[in-house]
Amino acid sequence: MASESGKLWGGRFVGTVDPIMEKFNSSITYDQHLWEVDVQGSKAYSRGLQKAGILTKTEMDQILQGLDKVAEEWAQGTFKLSPNDEDIHTANERRLKELIGETAGKLHTGRSRNDQVVTDLRLWMRQNCSMLSALLRELIRTMVDRAEAERDILFPGYTHLQRAQPIRWSHWILSHAVALTRDSERLLEVQKRINVLPLGSGAIAGNPLGVDRELLRAELNFGAITLNSMDATSERDFVAEFLFWASLCMTHLSRMAEDLILYGTKEFNLVQLSDAYSTGSSLMPQKKNPDSLELIRSKAGRVFGRCAGLLMTLKGLPSTYNKDLQEDKEAVFEVSNTMSAVIQVATGVISTLQIHRENMARALSPDMLATDLAYYLVRKGMPFRQAHEASGKAVFMAETKGVALNQLSLQELQTISPLFSGDVSHVWDYGHSVEQYAALGGTARSSVDWQIGQVRALLGAQQA
Amino acid sequence: MASESGKLWGGRFVGTVDPIMEKFNSSITYDQHLWEVDVQGSKAYSRGLQKAGILTKTEMDQILQGLDKVAEEWAQGTFKLSPNDEDIHTANERRLKELIGETAGKLHTGRSRNDQVVTDLRLWMRQNCSMLSALLRELIRTMVDRAEAERDILFPGYTHLQRAQPIRWSHWILSHAVALTRDSERLLEVQKRINVLPLGSGAIAGNPLGVDRELLRAELNFGAITLNSMDATSERDFVAEFLFWASLCMTHLSRMAEDLILYGTKEFNLVQLSDAYSTGSSLMPQKKNPDSLELIRSKAGRVFGRCAGLLMTLKGLPSTYNKDLQEDKEAVFEVSNTMSAVIQVATGVISTLQIHRENMARALSPDMLATDLAYYLVRKGMPFRQAHEASGKAVFMAETKGVALNQLSLQELQTISPLFSGDVSHVWDYGHSVEQYAALGGTARSSVDWQIGQVRALLGAQQA
Amino acid sequence: MASESGKLWGGRFVGTVDPIMEKFNSSITYDQHLWEVDVQGSKAYSRGLQKAGILTKTEMDQILQGLDKVAEEWAQGTFKLSPNDEDIHTANERRLKELIGETAGKLHTGRSRNDQVVTDLRLWMRQNCSMLSALLRELIRTMVDRAEAERDILFPGYTHLQRAQPIRWSHWILSHAVALTRDSERLLEVQKRINVLPLGSGAIAGNPLGVDRELLRAELNFGAITLNSMDATSERDFVAEFLFWASLCMTHLSRMAEDLILYGTKEFNLVQLSDAYSTGSSLMPQKKNPDSLELIRSKAGRVFGRCAGLLMTLKGLPSTYNKDLQEDKEAVFEVSNTMSAVIQVATGVISTLQIHRENMARALSPDMLATDLAYYLVRKGMPFRQAHEASGKAVFMAETKGVALNQLSLQELQTISPLFSGDVSHVWDYGHSVEQYAALGGTARSSVDWQIGQVRALLGAQQA
Amino acid sequence: MASESGKLWGGRFVGTVDPIMEKFNSSITYDQHLWEVDVQGSKAYSRGLQKAGILTKTEMDQILQGLDKVAEEWAQGTFKLSPNDEDIHTANERRLKELIGETAGKLHTGRSRNDQVVTDLRLWMRQNCSMLSALLRELIRTMVDRAEAERDILFPGYTHLQRAQPIRWSHWILSHAVALTRDSERLLEVQKRINVLPLGSGAIAGNPLGVDRELLRAELNFGAITLNSMDATSERDFVAEFLFWASLCMTHLSRMAEDLILYGTKEFNLVQLSDAYSTGSSLMPQKKNPDSLELIRSKAGRVFGRCAGLLMTLKGLPSTYNKDLQEDKEAVFEVSNTMSAVIQVATGVISTLQIHRENMARALSPDMLATDLAYYLVRKGMPFRQAHEASGKAVFMAETKGVALNQLSLQELQTISPLFSGDVSHVWDYGHSVEQYAALGGTARSSVDWQIGQVRALLGAQQA
Repeated sequence: MASESGKLWGGRFVGTVDPIMEKFNSSITYDQHLWEVDVQGSKAYSRGLQKAGILTKTEMDQILQGLDKVAEEWAQGTFKLSPNDEDIHTANERRLKELIGETAGKLHTGRSRNDQVVTDLRLWMRQNCSMLSALLRELIRTMVDRAEAERDILFPGYTHLQRAQPIRWSHWILSHAVALTRDSERLLEVQKRINVLPLGSGAIAGNPLGVDRELLRAELNFGAITLNSMDATSERDFVAEFLFWASLCMTHLSRMAEDLILYGTKEFNLVQLSDAYSTGSSLMPQKKNPDSLELIRSKAGRVFGRCAGLLMTLKGLPSTYNKDLQEDKEAVFEVSNTMSAVIQVATGVISTLQIHRENMARALSPDMLATDLAYYLVRKGMPFRQAHEASGKAVFMAETKGVALNQLSLQELQTISPLFSGDVSHVWDYGHSVEQYAALGGTARSSVDWQIGQVRALLGAQQA
Repeated sequence: MASESGKLWGGRFVGTVDPIMEKFNSSITYDQHLWEVDVQGSKAYSRGLQKAGILTKTEMDQILQGLDKVAEEWAQGTFKLSPNDEDIHTANERRLKELIGETAGKLHTGRSRNDQVVTDLRLWMRQNCSMLSALLRELIRTMVDRAEAERDILFPGYTHLQRAQPIRWSHWILSHAVALTRDSERLLEVQKRINVLPLGSGAIAGNPLGVDRELLRAELNFGAITLNSMDATSERDFVAEFLFWASLCMTHLSRMAEDLILYGTKEFNLVQLSDAYSTGSSLMPQKKNPDSLELIRSKAGRVFGRCAGLLMTLKGLPSTYNKDLQEDKEAVFEVSNTMSAVIQVATGVISTLQIHRENMARALSPDMLATDLAYYLVRKGMPFRQAHEASGKAVFMAETKGVALNQLSLQELQTISPLFSGDVSHVWDYGHSVEQYAALGGTARSSVDWQIGQVRALLGAQQA
Repeated sequence: MASESGKLWGGRFVGTVDPIMEKFNSSITYDQHLWEVDVQGSKAYSRGLQKAGILTKTEMDQILQGLDKVAEEWAQGTFKLSPNDEDIHTANERRLKELIGETAGKLHTGRSRNDQVVTDLRLWMRQNCSMLSALLRELIRTMVDRAEAERDILFPGYTHLQRAQPIRWSHWILSHAVALTRDSERLLEVQKRINVLPLGSGAIAGNPLGVDRELLRAELNFGAITLNSMDATSERDFVAEFLFWASLCMTHLSRMAEDLILYGTKEFNLVQLSDAYSTGSSLMPQKKNPDSLELIRSKAGRVFGRCAGLLMTLKGLPSTYNKDLQEDKEAVFEVSNTMSAVIQVATGVISTLQIHRENMARALSPDMLATDLAYYLVRKGMPFRQAHEASGKAVFMAETKGVALNQLSLQELQTISPLFSGDVSHVWDYGHSVEQYAALGGTARSSVDWQIGQVRALLGAQQA
Repeated sequence: MASESGKLWGGRFVGTVDPIMEKFNSSITYDQHLWEVDVQGSKAYSRGLQKAGILTKTEMDQILQGLDKVAEEWAQGTFKLSPNDEDIHTANERRLKELIGETAGKLHTGRSRNDQVVTDLRLWMRQNCSMLSALLRELIRTMVDRAEAERDILFPGYTHLQRAQPIRWSHWILSHAVALTRDSERLLEVQKRINVLPLGSGAIAGNPLGVDRELLRAELNFGAITLNSMDATSERDFVAEFLFWASLCMTHLSRMAEDLILYGTKEFNLVQLSDAYSTGSSLMPQKKNPDSLELIRSKAGRVFGRCAGLLMTLKGLPSTYNKDLQEDKEAVFEVSNTMSAVIQVATGVISTLQIHRENMARALSPDMLATDLAYYLVRKGMPFRQAHEASGKAVFMAETKGVALNQLSLQELQTISPLFSGDVSHVWDYGHSVEQYAALGGTARSSVDWQIGQVRALLGAQQA
């Protein structure tokens, strides 16, 4: 009889269980990551039960000490799982009973695994997200420091992967850093919604013992309590939000990785990845491959896959707890681990990346100043559309003649527009070009400095 | 020559264009939805150009009046697209030139379609999200009003779709309303990030004319300006966030729809959908199908598909603007329209839904009080685990005997535990059962009232 | 110096490696599942090298015996990983060298990990898909056997979850079995494309030693060889196809699971899940939850998430091998394991499911024959559209009067149409109703028998 | 009363309909694309009804002529939709009735929109897929022709975007062509499963009039009939398969587009896109952007999004027809149109692409022959692992000395291994290098010719 097996629902089942089903149903292989928060949650709940009069002070102390002992066994790696421990909650309670006897059986009064597991998961994620937040800010800080140090280096800005306009190298770094500040901001918002206590919601109807949820909240240091017990036990918005947060952040990192992979090709040759973040080929001795960056890029797929998977699992699910929700934890654990590794590797890549300044300078070419040539005419009074067309004709003329744009003679230019005169030669200065972009957000030095200040201020505010 | 065709980039191209490519490249069929915000953005930009000294006051006025005329033509449906109008920006500028002549050619000075289109899209989405916010709050308000009116009706709470515990009908309504308040909160966060001005970022390097972006911001009533021109023109976080917001909100609505579809079956028979939200069968005369709810459920897939599609498009894209980003707009338009329809239909469904009170009452059964039976023993001092097992034995005994759980005699119960005595009869009262769940978030009347108050307070705060 | 660490690319690297990067880059924790096929592939390749004159017969024999020893160690669990074993290929070759000395260094001649790993993965998947094919056919067979045994049981067919028309219970079973036969067919097609040999493609350019790929194919029993070395080393169509195959199959199983969850509710009460596939509640003693079915339903999300993740990873990847492709294996392993468990659990569920015949019969109601009432009129010569409307009026009349449809008197029916006469009473026979659907694919007994024959024939053909 | 509105389910509904719901529910805006196949299906069905004795020959002829008239109106653009035409089936039948009177009301006898719509969709897709198949083969043929013409041009093969080994340009073209042959093969398999007739399945239970489904199949030229009416009306495997087919095909095209975007940068400068497939910048006169390729790349996201959306919609849906399935058509139409445009644009791009032969030659560098240097040592008897390390040392030595690999003196090389002798100079010939890869699938000319033959044979077989 099943009650003999010690299963939580004891007393009723008369059949036997298919071993494949048993394994299929069990979550202990992964939810044991929750051991610490499960103990924390149970300690808080036993205080709630004592205040509600379900436990005496003595019983509570017995339970608290027993739980500390359980935690100690986990911490020391001496906790032994039994074959019937289908999940971490069952395992911890089973062990507690072995340690303190029947009093252990009072701990679950008014509680359900439905509110217990989601409390555990929120506790775990709260802690993990704080860690990810700190790692992400460290990455951004590294980028901003580098941007500050290298702000006088110019190189080609690309759109459509075609050389567009000269920009500061720091402007490129900051473009990615600024994107990451939004991730950092969003993670704080997700954390706010993670940090809400569901404990005291029972299986569906709530807690029938008048347990003081405000006390539980304070014990576990949550920011608020959930409003509705049915929603509390079955909503996984905070998981979906976290997975999407990670997906969008990975999209940013995949784009930065793509840029660096390109810039590190022999053809672009603008940057060189540190050996620490490269690997070689088992066949080709000369190869040095940007594996770190490729892995970062690839993880965007994996992480998003988890987000897609969870949302599909949630779609059309009937109200309240269904076992389908068990899919949440592996997704969270895998994505958390991936994000931690990716962010740290990205930080290492950025901080050890070498740049080839001469190549960056060499990559600038006069045709990238065609827009400046148009502005030259604009400043002489020509409407931009005409100036754009005139400059386009100059580009075409230079291409046809097989010379660089700045090698067209004044006479040649004047066949396009009589507004060209000797001062057009000033256009061909890359340093002068970038300094034009002094409006906020542009690539002029003043604006780059402003950006650095803004991002630092944001980081400071987020840390607080 | 291409310049004769009036294409924006004039002057240079010498080839011809494949008609399929032309159509493939064109976005005017859908981006014309942006006509109004495109005019707004151009008006603001012309003010910026005047302050920057590129336009005289007279030229600016000419442009402003011309743009007003363009808008008027769109509003009156008299705007005529020309075959070369590949996008709304080209179309509006082409028309402006026809209306006011060469001065129109000054409007685009220092601006790129890269910063123009993303400004337009943000303006459009800002307006649209405000509308969706209001619709969503209206839906929540409808639900809360209904919950308040019907809070004394009990029916079965289900977990795993199995009857679990008696709950208030209002507790069910509120479980969905509370989920939607998170969507409402998240939408405000998305709106905050939509409401940031990219104009003045040019194609990549920024604006070279010293345009006052703060003036542009104020003119267009944005909350802040973007920090980096490369990021500003190529990030679509706000689109991805919006699409994910919609996906998660649809997940909630799909779950509510699923519940109502089930509750409306002949078998559950707890609710009846208004005829206005049902349709019949072309074959079976007796059928009345919950098409509205099925469509709501199904749209969770469509909306999420758009989110998935955009993220895949963004994955691994090189920095700054690439034409790939043109995928953003159709996704936004389709999802916005879908959300607007879904939320309004859901509001209609909820406000016209009939409930079958007697069936709700009849659906409650004594076995749903098995947990209460366990609590009875807990209150007599038995640890919950033992009480749970004892109650399980009672359930098994009743099933074996083929009687309802409350029809076991006291003697029979006492074979399970001597703690049972005459007062066990008080357990079998559903009204008493729900009132136990008075801890915050539970299904007791006091808690339901508290929930209603909390949600109303949230709505009030969000509206402000 | 890195060469001392024994890394495959030896000799060149001078930096050190970030431990997080090292772990991030390593695949040995999961690709060790490939140990057996890696040895198989290497054995075949050493034969190829011998034929090509790179290995002497003695060297080849040395390598073959060494590889057998490696395999033996894995099989017996005595293989010891070293910290530098970043993947299974490195590990096996490192161990081979320890066992047989420098000759081991000849094995990788002309081979790259790029063609090695994809050969391994194809070998593994070929074996695994055969197993999944057999399990899937076993499930279908179980369903067909059950359909045959229970073909005289009628119950309501639902559309839109509303009672539609009486059908045979077997017709329902077969509707899911038929869907699964398509999965079975598709898996064979995927297997055909898995079963193509890439070995001999090197890193990118091919094999420079004139290795006989036809010999390799025959040794490893592949059906064909890949056509282009660049494609061969970097395409993962067979992985994407497998993941999609699994996703679509899971969609089918999720729909079957949904049906059974509904039919197993107290409200429908048509079926009862065996205890072996149910679990209880830690809080509510009376609960018996369909966890097996919920898990099956939920896995549709997880499996699809892997498919989505891989496709996103592949999107926009430059030609040939990039480290991004390393994402393939974990997806394959996880999905394979999931499919194996899901299909076996589904088989167990179907073969142990109890059905409640009386409830099935009781659930049929006269309004489900409204279409038959229309056909009655059609047979009397009324066009179907009018007949449908007339029958609809009868349904409305019965509802208004609060009687069952078959309780309307002949006089009452004649107020709707004079074509009604005494023989209308024959309409109200469920058995007669289902027998009308004798066109192929319908729910008449003859058609159900035909379906059973068709599915059995398909299974036979697929097994061959 | 609703029956007056002419809705198909007539007679019963008494409520009114929310206009937003009406629009939400309506599919006529997009399913009118099915007008032609809807008429075809109805014509076949009327023949079936005549054979079954439901229609007289005269009635059938009346209907057939009426349907031809309906088709004519659509073809000539004179068909007028009425406000109550919620879908194409209703519209066509409504119009038929206007044209031929009450006999039209017999056409739907025993048919349901459930089997009608899925028949229509299959007919439409069958035709569309044939068109896509032909377009795809045309693209592959273009690629193969080009590969044949340019097979003597060498350029760098890249792995990890790093220069790896010299290959033939045709080898690159063929790598993508070979990938597309798999798409072509898969599309035939999908077509096979599309080409199965569901008509005669009714709403759920089948057809009660003994309609001869074999006749229907023959009339509509389907390859087979569906086996089970419940499955037939509610499975959308063929849609999911088609959407996945498109997603995987787009993944291939996105990778080819990515390569060409890279090869077309100023930095790689290996190819130049025709003006017909490029566009310019509204700001920068010198820009010529590969918009065609970027759009192709981006559509991988959009198309996959539709696949993801449909699968999510299907997940967990109860058996048989639910309105959720209405999501199928827009996905099919959008994806079909996208694929048609993408494949044609890709064909245009490939056929007009210019290649820069000199740059391709110039991009080859001696370090790409490091593997050949290792093979040199292998041929002298050194195990590959040692040879790989020795070659790696040579690369390192050359880098340290700042010379090209082929500029190391024999003495220098001999410090690495005494096996080097004067004949090492033969290694540095790119033409000789590629010819080594003569194993099938490699980049030697013989193998490239073999590939061309193989792909042509495949195309021939597929066309047949």
